[in-house]
Amino acid sequence: MSHGNESKPSSEIDERARELELNGEQFRSLVEQTLNYLSPYLDSVGEQPAIAGPVLERRQREMTSLYPSCFPSLGQPADFLLQSLFGSMIHEGYNPSSPGYLAFIPGGGIPESSVADLIANIVNRYLGLRRAAPQLAAIDDTVLDWFCQMVGYGPGSGGYLSPGGSIANMTAIITARHHQLGEHGHLGTIYTSEQTHHSITKAALHVGIPRGQIRLLPVDDFCRLNHQAAEAMMEADRAQGLKPFLLVSHAGTTNTGAIDRMDDGRKLADIQSLWWHVDAAYGGFFLLTDRGRQRLQGIHDADSITVDPHKGLFLPYGTGCLLVKDLVRLRAACSLRGDYMPRQAGESSERFDACDLSPEQTRDFRGLRIWLPMMLHGVDVFRANLDEKLDLAQHVYQTLIDWQSQGEPWWVSPNPELTVVAFRLSPSNTTSEDLDTMNRELLEEVHQDGSILLSPTILHGALTVRLCVLCFRTHQSHVDKALELIHQAARKVLQRHAKSISN
Amino acid sequence: MSHGNESKPSSEIDERARELELNGEQFRSLVEQTLNYLSPYLDSVGEQPAIAGPVLERRQREMTSLYPSCFPSLGQPADFLLQSLFGSMIHEGYNPSSPGYLAFIPGGGIPESSVADLIANIVNRYLGLRRAAPQLAAIDDTVLDWFCQMVGYGPGSGGYLSPGGSIANMTAIITARHHQLGEHGHLGTIYTSEQTHHSITKAALHVGIPRGQIRLLPVDDFCRLNHQAAEAMMEADRAQGLKPFLLVSHAGTTNTGAIDRMDDGRKLADIQSLWWHVDAAYGGFFLLTDRGRQRLQGIHDADSITVDPHKGLFLPYGTGCLLVKDLVRLRAACSLRGDYMPRQAGESSERFDACDLSPEQTRDFRGLRIWLPMMLHGVDVFRANLDEKLDLAQHVYQTLIDWQSQGEPWWVSPNPELTVVAFRLSPSNTTSEDLDTMNRELLEEVHQDGSILLSPTILHGALTVRLCVLCFRTHQSHVDKALELIHQAARKVLQRHAKSISN
Repeated sequence: MSHGNESKPSSEIDERARELELNGEQFRSLVEQTLNYLSPYLDSVGEQPAIAGPVLERRQREMTSLYPSCFPSLGQPADFLLQSLFGSMIHEGYNPSSPGYLAFIPGGGIPESSVADLIANIVNRYLGLRRAAPQLAAIDDTVLDWFCQMVGYGPGSGGYLSPGGSIANMTAIITARHHQLGEHGHLGTIYTSEQTHHSITKAALHVGIPRGQIRLLPVDDFCRLNHQAAEAMMEADRAQGLKPFLLVSHAGTTNTGAIDRMDDGRKLADIQSLWWHVDAAYGGFFLLTDRGRQRLQGIHDADSITVDPHKGLFLPYGTGCLLVKDLVRLRAACSLRGDYMPRQAGESSERFDACDLSPEQTRDFRGLRIWLPMMLHGVDVFRANLDEKLDLAQHVYQTLIDWQSQGEPWWVSPNPELTVVAFRLSPSNTTSEDLDTMNRELLEEVHQDGSILLSPTILHGALTVRLCVLCFRTHQSHVDKALELIHQAARKVLQRHAKSISN
Repeated sequence: MSHGNESKPSSEIDERARELELNGEQFRSLVEQTLNYLSPYLDSVGEQPAIAGPVLERRQREMTSLYPSCFPSLGQPADFLLQSLFGSMIHEGYNPSSPGYLAFIPGGGIPESSVADLIANIVNRYLGLRRAAPQLAAIDDTVLDWFCQMVGYGPGSGGYLSPGGSIANMTAIITARHHQLGEHGHLGTIYTSEQTHHSITKAALHVGIPRGQIRLLPVDDFCRLNHQAAEAMMEADRAQGLKPFLLVSHAGTTNTGAIDRMDDGRKLADIQSLWWHVDAAYGGFFLLTDRGRQRLQGIHDADSITVDPHKGLFLPYGTGCLLVKDLVRLRAACSLRGDYMPRQAGESSERFDACDLSPEQTRDFRGLRIWLPMMLHGVDVFRANLDEKLDLAQHVYQTLIDWQSQGEPWWVSPNPELTVVAFRLSPSNTTSEDLDTMNRELLEEVHQDGSILLSPTILHGALTVRLCVLCFRTHQSHVDKALELIHQAARKVLQRHAKSISN
């Protein structure tokens, strides 16, 4: 038929090519085979450890049949692959969706979202152009409307369902610079606290802002940005010919869940004529609760806000979101097309096309994985979960404070505004080096059991333990188990060090 | 129990909170309910139109029960939502995974990938840190190894599984600038052809390269970059104090599938000491075929290459890929962490952590959706599909040339190297305005039927029709149907215009 395939008759080629076209029955069978693993998995996930060592020996793990060094030429049976995955491969390491996972920012993974993705992947529609899937684009819009309303944005606002918080933050910086400085922004400077998430710094570097123009400013005792220091720095920078254009506040730092003062942020951005972005990737969805609304009061004045549905809405990984108060500004920074994607007359009247509102072009259909669980359950279930998580963090904090008041040598970060509690063993007359060792040992002791995972950070120069409650499967019993392990571990570590000091 | 929830006893709150924790049986039931829609969908997708109008009236489409203006407080039954989705919502618009979709770059959507995502979403592991999921990170590595080997990269190479081609291209530009110019790259200039994909230009603007430093250079008759013109521009830019740092070649332009001359690209980048990036988002996976390997010869010398598994490997949307010849350079540009993510001793020995190799932090597990279908089928099935698609494009081209040689007024782009054929009606003695009108009408006529979708572009200033074969469901009969519709439509349009001219 044509050059390059002379050796095979074209009918034979066609047959192999059609092997990818599973029909309904074949697909059902593959899904049901998979359900035979996923269904028991879900029955046991509430008991699964938060951290697990290797199940198999290294030799077996590196089986070339599972990790072939080049494209496999022949296929293998589904059951062998599924058995390998669920037998050992998935289990080694951290389990961010298990109830005892209290490290970093815990993961979600509500099953309804995975069903939404199953649908989205099979129908595989293109959401970049509104006319390509108008009723599905309306699902993305609907979800974005909910979020805009949640943060207090009015008409003209909108957003972008991103693959995660980092790309959302990057898009915020791109939009801010474009709006404030146009194309020639190389003298632009940005301002945020030393408690910032590294995705802000990384995105700033990536979009071409040199390290020397990214100001990480001091914080107060509550880990909140010192706005006076920020303002002084802005003035000094202007005097040097630099161009301050962006203030980034945090609604929930990763280290301690600290919330920068929203009213001061707005005022400073106003006075200095800056774009005001709030990184609420972690804290944003607490706006669904009374306490969250109270603590994030004023956030609606931000020019842009990052929220992460794969954090606060318990979605599986893969969906962040940038909200923008004036959507026209996002579009101005992101609207650029090739000749092969002409606009159609009148199409931009009501709503913009998604491809003109992000750095992405072709992307998966992200709205459905938010829409489906929310439509199935209603928002109250999510609110109840978030309220419960706030209660649990309070409980952890209160317990640590109780221990402290009983004379135990704990340092505890201030009353948590969200669901992170940071603390460390801090006996007096101990060198900072020994303190770090003790707290590293504390973590190791707690993790021995496998059922609970915490994570370390550095606060005020000292190794500090973080406990963050955000997995939807985490309840009172899990937090109590964590507290019990922490208490036991602390006793051991303190005894060990008391001995070594007395020796 | 704590402030803010005084009105409800905490036991009641807990009950609602637990509603998201589907057990195995509940999950199985929801998936099976969904299968009752997906299974018939897959049985009919081979007959589905490539473009469809609204099934329901506007009034019904805007049902507030499906698009509520704020978070719904109560849930709705799964079956109502599924019925609405499959009854009308998904059908309106384009169907990039239907066999008659020959517009833009057709979509994939192999069902095995959706099963992989189902697994990935339920187990929801964090792939950013190797220690968090070592055996799953090894799946990502394995897939990247396959791709590196495919493009001819050796040891030390690697990559990043991105959400799509645009973010992959953006990451390439970020890495190139970081490696060539460090942090102070504001005088950097980039070079590519006027046939470039707009994601290159958009990414360049987004990372802070002003429009005036992005050089879109002329092409030859085959739509390939004119390297002499590029070199002259580089010299002129250097003379002005600008800093050329990046040459972007294309292995498959979107307009015509043109492949820039790889040998000339390499030589020019060498002589000028530039980073050489090849955007092979569309064409890359044709390297699996003999013809593709021959046509992309020399690509292994590129410093970085974008390939899009959701194009050439027929995956559902959501996975692009950046490959880098020297992975250390990608890491140098992307490695930055917060205190809350400390490195562990010795962990960077063999392989880097994924979070240090991309602008993203937390992301979905993208390797499994490539690994599972490839492990189930083996690569030959994919190769057979790609070979078939090359044959089909040849067939379209040959038919148009035949029509032309029979005296019909067709302009046809040169023999396609990949699977795009560009053509237009081009009767002599017709104004360029009339020609554009005729070709717009040609498209409208073809689309009347709904079974076939093509798309327009602008080539050499004239409205031109593109036909691209890439959906795995597209076979000979679909392409023949397209040719038949094109032929009929052309006759109609020519007759209509002959009349209007004779009037």
